Amino acid sequence: MRVDTIWRDSRLATMTTDTLGIVENGMIAALDGRIVYCGPATDAPAIDARETIHCDGRWITPGLIDCHTHLVFGGDRVDEFRLRLAGARYEDLAAVGGIRATVAATRAAPADTLRTQALARLDVMIAAGVTTLEVKSGYGLDVETEIRQLEVARSLGEHRRVHVSPSYLGAHAVPPEYLDNVDGYLDLVCTRMIPEIASGRLADSVDAFCETIAFSAAQVARVFGAAHAHGLQVRLHADQLSDLGGAALAARFGALSADHLEYASDAGAAAMARSGTVAVILPGAFLTLHETRKPPIGAFRRHGVRMAVATDLNPGSSPLVSPLLAMGLAANLFGLTIEECLLGMTREAARALGRQDRAGTLEAGRDCDLAIWSIEQPAELVYWLGHNPLHQRVFSGS
Amino acid sequence: MRVDTIWRDSRLATMTTDTLGIVENGMIAALDGRIVYCGPATDAPAIDARETIHCDGRWITPGLIDCHTHLVFGGDRVDEFRLRLAGARYEDLAAVGGIRATVAATRAAPADTLRTQALARLDVMIAAGVTTLEVKSGYGLDVETEIRQLEVARSLGEHRRVHVSPSYLGAHAVPPEYLDNVDGYLDLVCTRMIPEIASGRLADSVDAFCETIAFSAAQVARVFGAAHAHGLQVRLHADQLSDLGGAALAARFGALSADHLEYASDAGAAAMARSGTVAVILPGAFLTLHETRKPPIGAFRRHGVRMAVATDLNPGSSPLVSPLLAMGLAANLFGLTIEECLLGMTREAARALGRQDRAGTLEAGRDCDLAIWSIEQPAELVYWLGHNPLHQRVFSGS
Repeated sequence: MRVDTIWRDSRLATMTTDTLGIVENGMIAALDGRIVYCGPATDAPAIDARETIHCDGRWITPGLIDCHTHLVFGGDRVDEFRLRLAGARYEDLAAVGGIRATVAATRAAPADTLRTQALARLDVMIAAGVTTLEVKSGYGLDVETEIRQLEVARSLGEHRRVHVSPSYLGAHAVPPEYLDNVDGYLDLVCTRMIPEIASGRLADSVDAFCETIAFSAAQVARVFGAAHAHGLQVRLHADQLSDLGGAALAARFGALSADHLEYASDAGAAAMARSGTVAVILPGAFLTLHETRKPPIGAFRRHGVRMAVATDLNPGSSPLVSPLLAMGLAANLFGLTIEECLLGMTREAARALGRQDRAGTLEAGRDCDLAIWSIEQPAELVYWLGHNPLHQRVFSGS
Repeated sequence: MRVDTIWRDSRLATMTTDTLGIVENGMIAALDGRIVYCGPATDAPAIDARETIHCDGRWITPGLIDCHTHLVFGGDRVDEFRLRLAGARYEDLAAVGGIRATVAATRAAPADTLRTQALARLDVMIAAGVTTLEVKSGYGLDVETEIRQLEVARSLGEHRRVHVSPSYLGAHAVPPEYLDNVDGYLDLVCTRMIPEIASGRLADSVDAFCETIAFSAAQVARVFGAAHAHGLQVRLHADQLSDLGGAALAARFGALSADHLEYASDAGAAAMARSGTVAVILPGAFLTLHETRKPPIGAFRRHGVRMAVATDLNPGSSPLVSPLLAMGLAANLFGLTIEECLLGMTREAARALGRQDRAGTLEAGRDCDLAIWSIEQPAELVYWLGHNPLHQRVFSGS
């Protein structure tokens, strides 16, 4: 077998089983950016490689996948952080600034500024082993800015060796121009923006925020209907601050993922299991908003809902830039097991993006996106807090 | 004025006031490792510098000070982490492994191994701007290993450009050989180890763990009496898991610091204020042990107790390697203000180590230990989670 590169003397966490698919003395071979062999070195076929990389016993996992970020935004929300430390609630801040403060800053920012600032944050992610990430719009809430955000998100993949999956989150908040005319805004979202975004392939999916401070289940259903009509898959910010039946709503539309879910019901979890909707666990927002109600991890396990873990990187409710820390927080705050955390940032995150055939596991046929770690066991990636033991990242075979 | 180096075009958070002592367009000048001018560039005397560093508007703070770490230890406790995620309590784990597991691993580790592993962790701290840190013993619990730990701790300052302040924590746990003879162990601590450590200048202070799973207040008082008799200052792990009156005990002995303090009483806080004992806030252990009772921050403020923030870096209850994340957790978990966090990792941490005349603020006469940050405002050091915007660290003027 002729290949471009092989990685030898490595230990593999292939993520192909619920126990991480461990291979001691593993080998990976890549050709044209894809994995062509992954398994025990002793079982490998005869391989003629242009390049051989000796890993000195280091661990290799799939490149990390952050399946929920708001990476592209203008300004910051440090002042709001200050107010929250003084006791203000997120819901109250939404009325005086919150998402709308970032909307104003994002509308005012030219594409170059948005891109430069997003790349600085993306570089932190890449340095922690991220090879795929989702990036949402939702800080424009008008045609021009939403499209600018999505174009900037797509362009990040041209400036850095990383795969970006943009989501259109027009239904993130009611824009100031439409506070008295929410239906009018939804008309804009459904009849103009979704068609334009679908035809321009500006987004891979449509997201919405179903919450008392955002959109009702009926309003989200309208947005999802329009998304489906234009061939776009959907995902949902669901049941974060109250139970509006978001989990069941997401399941009803076959959503790729439902995210947050602190207030999701048992029936909602059961519905998600039936629809194959991934539960995306976001401990950064839970920590930052000083929440006390935890997502129903037990119900997800009982019903067999797949769980991903993500940073939710955003300037207001989750200024969390580290996928490793997202795992550490998911374990320490919500009691996810080490395996659930690691699978949640790889295999299940790929599924949440509909990319399980391309990424998230180490096996022949997948993109050769690797993270090589200077650790003695994979659990260390969850155990240490505030440490990044990445040795090297490989994207598309190099 | 002839100096070695000046830093220009910088913004300063000097930490000399409770509002961080901000100086826009600041300048620092250093001679022989000490600050000789710090303040507005416009007020500076005529200076002739061998080297001029342009900071391009970056922020300079004092080098960070981590005043509570267990940096030197053998092994790790990943297996215990796994059990805790499955629901086991720290107190229960103490009986089956816990600190004693690390004691066994530390006793088995030669000095070179302990040093190599500690240096790897120290390098993460240094990369985050730390210039001073405290390092405790307490994983030997016999003469030979406690001394080895302290010698390794002292030696770190010869291998890296950092100031290390070692603390002798013989009263961390009852060693296995003395489970039926705690008084016998305290005899060893008080009549042999403390004298030997004091005469060899192996530690700057004596620490103890006052807790139901460790030592009683009366036992700690005996250790502290021996420490004072040999001219060593004291500090205390106090009221972490229950109220044993640790805060008041620390105050009674004029301790430099009392640390953890989740269960400290109002009377304890009042006593600490009178004695000038610093409250060291340790959110890493709170998070890792899934605690729910928070330290009485309101009482500390009301009584005027100074608060420091530290990582508590250790393999069991706080695998937290990042001083920046310690601040972010202190804000998000305990509601410390941005200013309290930043002062707690600089000025107040220096006081907790008795080094307030050398470190922790930017002013003439202090050691020139600086952290230079690529940020727009100091609050970002607390706001972003899992990000390290250090541009450069300066130790002793270079």
